[in-house]
Amino acid sequence: MPAGPIDPPARLLMGPGPITVHPRVLQAMSAQLVGQYDPFMTTTMTETQELYREVFATANDATLLVDGTSRAGIEAALVSLLAPGDRVLVPRFGRFGHLLVEIAERCGAEVHAIDVPWGQVFVPEAIEAAIREVRPKLLAVVHGDTSTTVAQPLEELGAICRAHDVLLYCDATATLGGNPFRTDEWGVDVVTAGLQKCLGGPSGSSPITLSGRAVAVVEARTSVEAGIRSEGDPVLRERIRSNYFDLGQILQYWGPKRLNHHTEATTMLYGARECARILLEEGVAAAVARHRLHGEAMLAGMQGLGLAPFGDLAHRMTNVVGVRIPDGVHGDAVRSELLEDYGIEIGTSFGPLHGRVWRIGTMGYNARRDAVLTTLAALEAVLRRHGVRVPTAGGTEAAQDVYGAAA
Amino acid sequence: MPAGPIDPPARLLMGPGPITVHPRVLQAMSAQLVGQYDPFMTTTMTETQELYREVFATANDATLLVDGTSRAGIEAALVSLLAPGDRVLVPRFGRFGHLLVEIAERCGAEVHAIDVPWGQVFVPEAIEAAIREVRPKLLAVVHGDTSTTVAQPLEELGAICRAHDVLLYCDATATLGGNPFRTDEWGVDVVTAGLQKCLGGPSGSSPITLSGRAVAVVEARTSVEAGIRSEGDPVLRERIRSNYFDLGQILQYWGPKRLNHHTEATTMLYGARECARILLEEGVAAAVARHRLHGEAMLAGMQGLGLAPFGDLAHRMTNVVGVRIPDGVHGDAVRSELLEDYGIEIGTSFGPLHGRVWRIGTMGYNARRDAVLTTLAALEAVLRRHGVRVPTAGGTEAAQDVYGAAA
Repeated sequence: MPAGPIDPPARLLMGPGPITVHPRVLQAMSAQLVGQYDPFMTTTMTETQELYREVFATANDATLLVDGTSRAGIEAALVSLLAPGDRVLVPRFGRFGHLLVEIAERCGAEVHAIDVPWGQVFVPEAIEAAIREVRPKLLAVVHGDTSTTVAQPLEELGAICRAHDVLLYCDATATLGGNPFRTDEWGVDVVTAGLQKCLGGPSGSSPITLSGRAVAVVEARTSVEAGIRSEGDPVLRERIRSNYFDLGQILQYWGPKRLNHHTEATTMLYGARECARILLEEGVAAAVARHRLHGEAMLAGMQGLGLAPFGDLAHRMTNVVGVRIPDGVHGDAVRSELLEDYGIEIGTSFGPLHGRVWRIGTMGYNARRDAVLTTLAALEAVLRRHGVRVPTAGGTEAAQDVYGAAA
Repeated sequence: MPAGPIDPPARLLMGPGPITVHPRVLQAMSAQLVGQYDPFMTTTMTETQELYREVFATANDATLLVDGTSRAGIEAALVSLLAPGDRVLVPRFGRFGHLLVEIAERCGAEVHAIDVPWGQVFVPEAIEAAIREVRPKLLAVVHGDTSTTVAQPLEELGAICRAHDVLLYCDATATLGGNPFRTDEWGVDVVTAGLQKCLGGPSGSSPITLSGRAVAVVEARTSVEAGIRSEGDPVLRERIRSNYFDLGQILQYWGPKRLNHHTEATTMLYGARECARILLEEGVAAAVARHRLHGEAMLAGMQGLGLAPFGDLAHRMTNVVGVRIPDGVHGDAVRSELLEDYGIEIGTSFGPLHGRVWRIGTMGYNARRDAVLTTLAALEAVLRRHGVRVPTAGGTEAAQDVYGAAA
């Protein structure tokens, strides 16, 4: 047999995610399984729901995990909320706005997108004007789009949506835990996330929360699965197009009825639970401040190396910096050398930014001073080997200045 | 914060799955992450594909993992193959046949089901007769249905399907690795599985394999995602209803193009890889023989305790035994006592069998002599406390006889 025991090389993952997993999360994921309806299992599920209510800053009862990557959570939200023909509005400012459009189209929804150039965000007035015109059932928006490193302000959108009787869905995969996010205060009806960004876990579990009015929409579209249906269980009206992503059925599995749906991915559950525990031990506000500090240090360091930032700095995410690749430099060659010689990964870009922008993450477990400084020192050395004239220690000194000012 | 470090109670999981995870799998899953396009990551994905080709007994290039539980694999197969209005035939002999119907209905397919009473299987002639009548695009069948503990013989279905130009899909979640399964030899076009049964892993990753003609069907329905589309990439004809489960896009992610789709659930990948490594080190034939031996010992032991087997023994799965709960005995009370006092879990049943049948698994890591004998000894003690007259050491001695005869 050719494949030996798994033995990954040492890496410092400073890209836009996935990032190095917090060792405590890996430890938690090595715990042994219990049965699907073991009292320990149901207690663990309930605890995890409580933990994620605090992570999402919500009192929503319907707070749980979807078993799949962050895009599984997105699809569960959209396919459960949107019936064919429903209108949805997507303000699109990066790759993941395109993804929302793509998924909503597959749900059979009538999708209306509005655009700003990559690197910018929308003013609330532009979104409200589009809502007036489109009159959607749902506004679906990405919070922070790692493809452009900027975050759409959400504070005013909840009130706008309520005024127009529109549901508000937000993809917070790239921001949750490292940027302020207030589900209830902002009036967001449905939020989905992933573990592999600021939460410091591996991809494969998608935390989700739904408001009461979102649950009402979902429940009106769900029914009990045929193989486990009892007499008297209602049969379908207008059916959700997916079984795996039927949030009504998933809620009944996580709820007091514990109605069998999928077999919960217990190891991912353990991981998601530990991610939330680590975050809440630190405190969400402290974790956001930490992301902001190390993100600022990284940005200053990149500028100190003479690299120009990409995107609207007033709206940049705390946890990803975009920088323009210097003219004449082969972006992927620099990335490869950084990976091979230093074990450090930084990110490339998609679509219109490919080959023009690097993306450097400082998130989750890697929002740390040593990770930031090591990355800057290594990048300086690699850039120099690629013929870029960089100020000696320009990156590390600029980052140290940020740390000094914060101390 | 109320939730402490994860600390599951010691359990011996002898239900129909999930079962106790092989410690080597948990170890592999605690390995640190690398980036999504790190050469080590793509090599690991390729190795995992090779390993699962051997597990599935196939030369199919399109052999990979779907990120989700076993039902994610089922839905990926059905939604990628079936367009709205396509006819599908489902021979239904247990709960998971109902699930295939439910999922295919959600795909908008025209679903035709044929039934036998739970505990029985179909003769090939009955299936061929239904194919002649329905003329489906796809025959979708469960291999072993843990709800009834019997396995549908598949050997003749591939030839029948080819004769009638029908695609053959099989859900092998509950059987793969512990029962004979020959994808290519049997002419099965698409097979999906999960880790949490005979493969000895946790739920959360679904191995899948597709024949060339299945890939052709899928590829005719797929396109490149909008956010990462390049000039010249074809735009859609008849679109797959899901993005997350679009096997065409997932294949392009696993294939040489490595086109970004989801962020691979690396920890589950490590686990799936180790499950396959363990199986192939033992050898698939040896593993099947081991499951057969311990399954027979468990069956003999249950009969030795005076419990009547459920289902057609000629077609029983190697890895799950169904037994009728004795009259006057509260099935769930026995299960609870076994769990609380002995740390051993056995399974209840769904639908028409609930409260009438227990299901006892001997699979994956727990297809072991000590696991079988311990379960029988404990069950004897618990049954006696519940007023059942059981022969002293009737279970363990009968099982020992099976082991003695095999030695």
